[in-house]
Amino acid sequence: MNYQVPRGTQDVLPKDISKWHQIEEMIRQFCYVYNFEEIRTPIFEHTNVFKRGNDSSDMVNKEMYTFTLENSSTSLTLRPEGTAGVVRSFVENKMFGYPDLPMKMYYVGPQCRHERPQKGRMRIFNQFGVEVVGAKSPMLDVEAIALGYSFLSAVGLQDMKVLINTLGDDASRDAYRTALKEHFKDGIKDMCGDCQRRYEQNPLRILDCKVDHDSELMKTAPKMSDYLTEESKAYFQAVLDGLDALGIPYEIEDTLVRGLDYYTHTVFEIVSENKEMGAQSTVLAGGRYDGLVEYFGGPEKMSGIGWALGIERLIIACEAEGIVLGEDEGLDAYVLCLSPKVQIEALQIVTELRAAGYRSECEFLNRSFKAQFKTVERKKAKTAIIVGEKDIEQGTVNIKNIATQTQQTVALDGVVDAMDALFGEEEHEHVCTCEDGNCTCGQHKE
Amino acid sequence: MNYQVPRGTQDVLPKDISKWHQIEEMIRQFCYVYNFEEIRTPIFEHTNVFKRGNDSSDMVNKEMYTFTLENSSTSLTLRPEGTAGVVRSFVENKMFGYPDLPMKMYYVGPQCRHERPQKGRMRIFNQFGVEVVGAKSPMLDVEAIALGYSFLSAVGLQDMKVLINTLGDDASRDAYRTALKEHFKDGIKDMCGDCQRRYEQNPLRILDCKVDHDSELMKTAPKMSDYLTEESKAYFQAVLDGLDALGIPYEIEDTLVRGLDYYTHTVFEIVSENKEMGAQSTVLAGGRYDGLVEYFGGPEKMSGIGWALGIERLIIACEAEGIVLGEDEGLDAYVLCLSPKVQIEALQIVTELRAAGYRSECEFLNRSFKAQFKTVERKKAKTAIIVGEKDIEQGTVNIKNIATQTQQTVALDGVVDAMDALFGEEEHEHVCTCEDGNCTCGQHKE
Repeated sequence: MNYQVPRGTQDVLPKDISKWHQIEEMIRQFCYVYNFEEIRTPIFEHTNVFKRGNDSSDMVNKEMYTFTLENSSTSLTLRPEGTAGVVRSFVENKMFGYPDLPMKMYYVGPQCRHERPQKGRMRIFNQFGVEVVGAKSPMLDVEAIALGYSFLSAVGLQDMKVLINTLGDDASRDAYRTALKEHFKDGIKDMCGDCQRRYEQNPLRILDCKVDHDSELMKTAPKMSDYLTEESKAYFQAVLDGLDALGIPYEIEDTLVRGLDYYTHTVFEIVSENKEMGAQSTVLAGGRYDGLVEYFGGPEKMSGIGWALGIERLIIACEAEGIVLGEDEGLDAYVLCLSPKVQIEALQIVTELRAAGYRSECEFLNRSFKAQFKTVERKKAKTAIIVGEKDIEQGTVNIKNIATQTQQTVALDGVVDAMDALFGEEEHEHVCTCEDGNCTCGQHKE
Repeated sequence: MNYQVPRGTQDVLPKDISKWHQIEEMIRQFCYVYNFEEIRTPIFEHTNVFKRGNDSSDMVNKEMYTFTLENSSTSLTLRPEGTAGVVRSFVENKMFGYPDLPMKMYYVGPQCRHERPQKGRMRIFNQFGVEVVGAKSPMLDVEAIALGYSFLSAVGLQDMKVLINTLGDDASRDAYRTALKEHFKDGIKDMCGDCQRRYEQNPLRILDCKVDHDSELMKTAPKMSDYLTEESKAYFQAVLDGLDALGIPYEIEDTLVRGLDYYTHTVFEIVSENKEMGAQSTVLAGGRYDGLVEYFGGPEKMSGIGWALGIERLIIACEAEGIVLGEDEGLDAYVLCLSPKVQIEALQIVTELRAAGYRSECEFLNRSFKAQFKTVERKKAKTAIIVGEKDIEQGTVNIKNIATQTQQTVALDGVVDAMDALFGEEEHEHVCTCEDGNCTCGQHKE
């Protein structure tokens, strides 16, 4: 029997969750001001949403969680990436008919790939990605890259740069593919098995090979830039001009082709140059795609651009650069309970505090005063509210301000007022969203 | 070829996402003040995490997404519920040794059950749940119910009540099971197949049967309350006293046994009495469990209590009660572009506005002025910032305040200041979290 997480997966524990919360809050804020709206697609889709034609990528051919349930003929696949599901949804929900295209969307959530686990590469990992679908303009490419770059900068990453390339339009890529096949024609038999498959399916991806990366044939391979049509060149130049105008540093990397088959025109990565990251230096990657909307049954030649970043890998990059994410603020109050007989009153007090927006905890386990006070320290409580039998008889409790080590006695119904006096009412928020206070949530003071 | 979401699943589209954001924001706020911390477990686990012994529930026996990948002998299951994974994580990460038990945890995310889809019952659905693991006190039961009840009240649900029952301790349940088997002994052969299976596996769950619910034998069945030990009675009374003290309305429902096998002592549901909800009236459900920590290899008799609610179903309940969730606020600014030649300048303006925290959009598609202005209206933009060739030559742009229909000309580098003057600097937030403004995110004014 095995009671551990499956290999290559992990829990995010309460002690680490604040890092995730900070990153997700920044994602929401950035996408809000950039006017990207969130979309959520199912965690599994029909397999053919991801497995399209003779796709040559490892992700589709080797790494998918594909299954068919008993008594069913439907092949399902846990999503390995976000773009396909978003574009499927764009078409299925006829967003191509919306009046204000492009749809600017983002997603945050788990993706599943059955590959060999290593640092920064989990079988279930979380991506933040954007997709701008339904219109084409070099300025949209710039906007998408600018969102990614400024988000990562705001998170605090410093040692990074944008690598960018263009794969051009269909005519450019056809000409380049022919040139590549000619170049590798004699040598391909000595290259790795993957390269031999790529030679047939998609020769561009030979340039992605990690095995044959340093071979002589690879170094002398023709360059994409020599096969671009005038239109493709102009499009790429407009993207670069936009990046210049926004002061985003980039490097043109003419071997960058990206591991997915559907890209056209702009492809890019943002890489961390921090040594601690090792081989996994790509923090964000994406590109423009022209054929996906049509594949899913939408209008012809309706273009999109998107990128994704791995949140686990981003957290590793932050740690490598010494960025501290999400520090815990501690409790506002810990309610100590000196006798089992006053538990109900302690419960009422902690409930009132929470209703007033104070992050509070209460002792329910009848431990010793000393044990309770150790918890006050460990939970970094700003106040200890001490409830004893005699206090309750007198209708009072004692509040100890931990920072000043001063203690005061207040009336049982004056605990929230006393906390307000200590911390100021602005310090905390009422959690109920009703505006008139007429709801039954118990979140309002009389 | 099928390019639709799998049966029983759905996309959450941008037009509906603000409902989800509002609910999730309230979840975070409530759990924060109640001092529950988020935990995230993998979306699939080893199958035996969910399939434990001779569990009699439909969920485990009929509805799980269980699969084994090619070239693997590991049986995996998409999680059908949240409790098992959280308790597995509690044990695997040795949280039972933490100094301040219980661990008060919550989770939010998708669960998968392969059942017949119907309104409010999807194959992939999202749950918000809490688990309080590692200590036992009736006050913890009360606290968990109070969190659920006040959360739902704050969301705005009004037609609801808490149904509560106790299954007592092992001795109580053993006595009751014996009484039930005696009661149904002769009649079981005439009851449904599920009941016959339950008779052998877990006779308590016969009371859950929807098929035989109104049969005479069911109506005359012995009551759990007559078989409780004194200790179990006292525990239940303490829970009820706590609910009374907090003013939470409840009804004791002595046939409530819940569909999962692991419950002991307190079980409860919060139901909506709104007619529009139909048969799916349970909004939240949960109970205490004593054996799960031990099952996963943790200490004996370490208790937990938890509940879960379905977010899709909560949204349906809100709609049935006329509660409006998450309204879109519109854009702060739409930057109109009167010529392709000024796109770079328009891009710079929209980037500056976003860096200053204004939710902004820019025209990149060279449409007619009329078409652009229609977008301004549809996107509910508060201002239209009009960028033309002559303006740029003169170093100015025009800002139109849509509410007042007044227009002003401002310097190219004064757009953010003009927006601040219109809306007040407090209205928006700078999105970068760095404190000294020395980062490279471009999110700071000079």
